[in-house]
Amino acid sequence: MSENVIWHRHAVTQKIRARRKSQRPLVIWFTGLSASGKSTIAGALEQILTQQGYHTYLLDGDNLRHGLCRDLGFSDADRKENIRRVGEIARLMSDAGLITLAAFISPFRDDRRIVRDILPAGEFIEVFVDTPLDVCRERDPKGLYAKAERGEITKFTGIDSPYEAPQNPELHLDSARLSVAQAVNQLLAYLGESGVLQAGYRPLVA
Amino acid sequence: MSENVIWHRHAVTQKIRARRKSQRPLVIWFTGLSASGKSTIAGALEQILTQQGYHTYLLDGDNLRHGLCRDLGFSDADRKENIRRVGEIARLMSDAGLITLAAFISPFRDDRRIVRDILPAGEFIEVFVDTPLDVCRERDPKGLYAKAERGEITKFTGIDSPYEAPQNPELHLDSARLSVAQAVNQLLAYLGESGVLQAGYRPLVA
Repeated sequence: MSENVIWHRHAVTQKIRARRKSQRPLVIWFTGLSASGKSTIAGALEQILTQQGYHTYLLDGDNLRHGLCRDLGFSDADRKENIRRVGEIARLMSDAGLITLAAFISPFRDDRRIVRDILPAGEFIEVFVDTPLDVCRERDPKGLYAKAERGEITKFTGIDSPYEAPQNPELHLDSARLSVAQAVNQLLAYLGESGVLQAGYRPLVA
Repeated sequence: MSENVIWHRHAVTQKIRARRKSQRPLVIWFTGLSASGKSTIAGALEQILTQQGYHTYLLDGDNLRHGLCRDLGFSDADRKENIRRVGEIARLMSDAGLITLAAFISPFRDDRRIVRDILPAGEFIEVFVDTPLDVCRERDPKGLYAKAERGEITKFTGIDSPYEAPQNPELHLDSARLSVAQAVNQLLAYLGESGVLQAGYRPLVA
């Protein structure tokens, strides 16, 4: 290589990275109430995809609220900014060639639309993890619903802050009735049918 | 897989992702004045690493200032927040198993230290792209130094805002004297010797 080679800035494109991995980059966005099962289902899907050779990354409150978004609280404006930043990271990860899973309550329709809009067409898969409020409230693994009902936390989605359900999600999971394995199977079937998993998919035996 | 499988959240770790790619994730952080050659060298290194089968991602002003950091200006506080966010993304990308290249002026020593500190030990490689101010000012590809000298932009690093040179960078590139290919060779040699490129490295013929 001579000194006269012209270096093209950012010559390594998403296409090159994705081809090398035989996968189609995309963002699988899980939305739903607290305790609806978003993170559990996303984590299970990630495990299976990794076993099948795909390169994934899971974004959720745990790895963002303490880092990139640690300056943000839970006001409407801060929630909006939180989801905006997550969307931007998802875009970068997708540009890096990864299958990115994002598990966030993301209660506002407009915010989810903003994320969809910053991604290239077809790269945003909205998955509605639809567990009724009563069921979530009963599960309450972190005791957050109890706290919200006692007024110890405010602006809690489903209690004193609205959840705007997706109107046309790519996938609607009836997550109160489905086991985790069944939910993952529905996801794999969807991804397989829509050609995202180029190597095909192998359903789980639930 | 039965319904009783216990799903471990985030069971897919950096280690698993990295092993699958036979690469050691890390962040290669290029710091230096505007027009010192950071992005050019980083882009060239990325091209070579990709050709050699590594999975990389390049973060720079172009893909961040218009997205994740578009709410930030160039005050000291905003620059600090800009670098903090870039550091957090680099951490996530590294956690995702990638070799992340970051090219930012990042003039303040403290800010670079913050990024180093949020990363696991040994995952931060600071590369000082050391081109003297006079040379940068003469190159001035975007006309920014001229604007700063006319007072049309303020807080411009090297003109009316300080650049704090690294004291102990992992690599010090005398970038005014080196060709791009020579700079990339020095980087490849460093990465090869420090065992980052597990498959060894092939130097370029400059």
